[in-house]
Amino acid sequence: MSPELQLDSRGRLRHLLTLEGLGAELLTEILDTAEELEHSLRGPDKKLPLLRGRTVVNLFFEPSTRTRTTFELAAKRLSADVLNLQLAASSTSKGETLFDTLKTLEAMQVDMFVVRHEASGAAHFFAQHAAPGVAILNAGDGRHAHPTQGLLDLFTIRRYKGPDIDCFRKLRVAIVGDVLHSRVARSDIHGLRALGTTDIRVVAPPTLVPAGIEQMGVSVHHDMDEGIDGVDVVILLRLQKERMLGAYLPSMSEFHRDFGLTRARARALRPDAIIMHPGPINRGVEIEGDVAYGPQSLILQQVRHGIAVRMAVMAMILGQASVRTRPRRRSTR
Amino acid sequence: MSPELQLDSRGRLRHLLTLEGLGAELLTEILDTAEELEHSLRGPDKKLPLLRGRTVVNLFFEPSTRTRTTFELAAKRLSADVLNLQLAASSTSKGETLFDTLKTLEAMQVDMFVVRHEASGAAHFFAQHAAPGVAILNAGDGRHAHPTQGLLDLFTIRRYKGPDIDCFRKLRVAIVGDVLHSRVARSDIHGLRALGTTDIRVVAPPTLVPAGIEQMGVSVHHDMDEGIDGVDVVILLRLQKERMLGAYLPSMSEFHRDFGLTRARARALRPDAIIMHPGPINRGVEIEGDVAYGPQSLILQQVRHGIAVRMAVMAMILGQASVRTRPRRRSTR
Amino acid sequence: MSPELQLDSRGRLRHLLTLEGLGAELLTEILDTAEELEHSLRGPDKKLPLLRGRTVVNLFFEPSTRTRTTFELAAKRLSADVLNLQLAASSTSKGETLFDTLKTLEAMQVDMFVVRHEASGAAHFFAQHAAPGVAILNAGDGRHAHPTQGLLDLFTIRRYKGPDIDCFRKLRVAIVGDVLHSRVARSDIHGLRALGTTDIRVVAPPTLVPAGIEQMGVSVHHDMDEGIDGVDVVILLRLQKERMLGAYLPSMSEFHRDFGLTRARARALRPDAIIMHPGPINRGVEIEGDVAYGPQSLILQQVRHGIAVRMAVMAMILGQASVRTRPRRRSTR
Repeated sequence: MSPELQLDSRGRLRHLLTLEGLGAELLTEILDTAEELEHSLRGPDKKLPLLRGRTVVNLFFEPSTRTRTTFELAAKRLSADVLNLQLAASSTSKGETLFDTLKTLEAMQVDMFVVRHEASGAAHFFAQHAAPGVAILNAGDGRHAHPTQGLLDLFTIRRYKGPDIDCFRKLRVAIVGDVLHSRVARSDIHGLRALGTTDIRVVAPPTLVPAGIEQMGVSVHHDMDEGIDGVDVVILLRLQKERMLGAYLPSMSEFHRDFGLTRARARALRPDAIIMHPGPINRGVEIEGDVAYGPQSLILQQVRHGIAVRMAVMAMILGQASVRTRPRRRSTR
Repeated sequence: MSPELQLDSRGRLRHLLTLEGLGAELLTEILDTAEELEHSLRGPDKKLPLLRGRTVVNLFFEPSTRTRTTFELAAKRLSADVLNLQLAASSTSKGETLFDTLKTLEAMQVDMFVVRHEASGAAHFFAQHAAPGVAILNAGDGRHAHPTQGLLDLFTIRRYKGPDIDCFRKLRVAIVGDVLHSRVARSDIHGLRALGTTDIRVVAPPTLVPAGIEQMGVSVHHDMDEGIDGVDVVILLRLQKERMLGAYLPSMSEFHRDFGLTRARARALRPDAIIMHPGPINRGVEIEGDVAYGPQSLILQQVRHGIAVRMAVMAMILGQASVRTRPRRRSTR
Repeated sequence: MSPELQLDSRGRLRHLLTLEGLGAELLTEILDTAEELEHSLRGPDKKLPLLRGRTVVNLFFEPSTRTRTTFELAAKRLSADVLNLQLAASSTSKGETLFDTLKTLEAMQVDMFVVRHEASGAAHFFAQHAAPGVAILNAGDGRHAHPTQGLLDLFTIRRYKGPDIDCFRKLRVAIVGDVLHSRVARSDIHGLRALGTTDIRVVAPPTLVPAGIEQMGVSVHHDMDEGIDGVDVVILLRLQKERMLGAYLPSMSEFHRDFGLTRARARALRPDAIIMHPGPINRGVEIEGDVAYGPQSLILQQVRHGIAVRMAVMAMILGQASVRTRPRRRSTR
């Protein structure tokens, strides 16, 4: 799956499929644009005219009320018309009929598709076949990528560890939990690496670490206390409980004991360490409830930043010029 | 469940959870605002800019196309962005996860939640935990309250028995049917009592009257002809047929014979009596079809007024100042 | 089912239920209006203010994501508020409760209903009982009619065989496949006949031709090669595979062999013949995939034209004056 597909001939964003291959400059531009948009959302009227008259289709082959909602809100706050389509992956499982679905909706003069699909590579398939002027935004494809989640994680880290973009170089980051099935982990690692982070630790039981992950430039730890020792950022991953038991894990309580962010482990973190989770949390599994709403947790801020980041990507792809009409500000937190 | 929760320190509406504890002055203000809005809906363009850029989420844990539709239309006609979320109550049955749902959506900078839930008290729970600036509107919680239905019933009665708000003092009102399970009945009784109605009659078989209802200031009648004798207003309640048979009632036809508004009973009403029902009607159970569409029935007017009343509550809570920019008119019908 | 129901006393469109009974002048006016709207959709901002503040309800008793989407987009691009209601036909199968549904939604001051129902005549039922000022648009009722599909087919044919409206007089058109169950075929035949087409050929196995279809002014062919010989337009119909096998057809492959538009048959067509299909296509049944995306196929153009045609009908019924404010252009392709 070629990351070049998502850039146009001048290196500008045309689709967003993965953070792999996006350079530090482009990532910084996205974060800066999101920063501007996040400021504009602070008043009571959260509506900007940037995508007026444009049509965004949420094309979800996997149900996800939460993710769909964030894209729907982002598009509506940019004044786009939004259509929500929930399709069964089974009925369009062959490439040829995915193709028909894409072409039919394109013919309705849709400007952007937000695609979620259980198959890794589905968003790439759409981007390969999209007509000129039609943009694809990957909202999660199989175990492959979830680039807007990666971007909102970068945004959140820069907010609390920046504002200098160079903050990423000296960060120690632990990514904890089910890395094997996690598209979030992959997107976070690509983004952090592009921004210069060298100390990225994958913390998980051996059954939940994909083979060869070290080649992405991370270290692997099977002991959580060792893995999170001295880190600046802890990113917890959501455990898909239903598919875990038996096959990958002996029990939820054992996972919690060995890899959950308990109150004791949270107390042992550096006082300025931040705690993140893509949500929704499993209380008492990846994290204790108290810790999720404690002073070092940024879980809700991540949700808030997710709207701004998605607006930024949509605006950059569909209405680039307009975003730049206001003077650029740096985050002042 | 403390009714004070829904008022701010200056006694203004902050959430709408129940009509219990709302005074005559505030109720009158809501009805007056709805009156103004209802006039503005008479032209072809029904869009007002009062909530432009605001986000309203319909958070329904119990399916109800009809009720959801009225809130969706009310919010859209005020120019708000609307999100419809249908969640399973089972997946969020514990307070802690309801809390997570609330906090996550709040982080998306939602301004108002319209909540329907099968559990009495769910809307109060949300209001107790809502962030400053986030409003909760109860669209029905268990057997507890359905305050916008109560308000639209008051609005309809004032339209046809007013316009003087003092009209409520001398009214005789019968509320007929399944009072036991009815949040509508409770909200109607609270509203009528606050506006001074003293003759409120609950008319139902003994199995469908909650113990101690007399303490709400109503009389109980088990004979319908006696109960509706000489009344100005008949409010019929919807029978949830599926949960009735066996447990509460011998048969639908027996209920219709004893407590249905038949043609014969409708003819025996005062010529100026009005007939109301929250809908959807069960023809041949609570009411005969002819009577539902007869000259004394206001069932469709109730639906129409429901939009105006919901717009009024939304506008008063989220955009109070703006509603007052036009001179106040009294209903002239 | 009286076609007069859909015209007002001055012969203007009030509902759109069927193409039966609509004259050449009115059909031409609809196509001209769609032509204007289609031009206005070519820029990035596809939003027109013609139906601002109006409410359109998609009332679907039969699921159809695709058709619903085209009406939703058409209404949103005219700036209407759109409500999507998916109801079970079973719960409203009796006329009296369909009536209740209509009256309740009317009371919410809805301006237009887009109705799809499995029962032939459902849209007529709604039109018969609709209040003054409330319009009904038939989005497919049983085997009866699908008038906007008929209009978009006429629009597509005029685009590629016109621009003169008289082009229809000399056309040879073949309609191929399951004519028996097809509301599309009926609407196409009514529209083509009204515009003067005399050579309309129905091409299907005997089991899939309704008795007496010749009375609509068409010829019947059971041999496809003979039926499509020398035609200007081939309209393929979608086969509802699930209800075909056994009852109507021996096998899909046999149908494809005898009545599918194979590559060989496509090559034998006149070089300027056009190929149409209402979608979604069954690859390898009615049509080979290559042919569907080949140079003579207009299947995707039909989808695009469908938005413009639906916008035209909505604008003519609800906001007639405004559409005429711009000078009328003829198609120049």
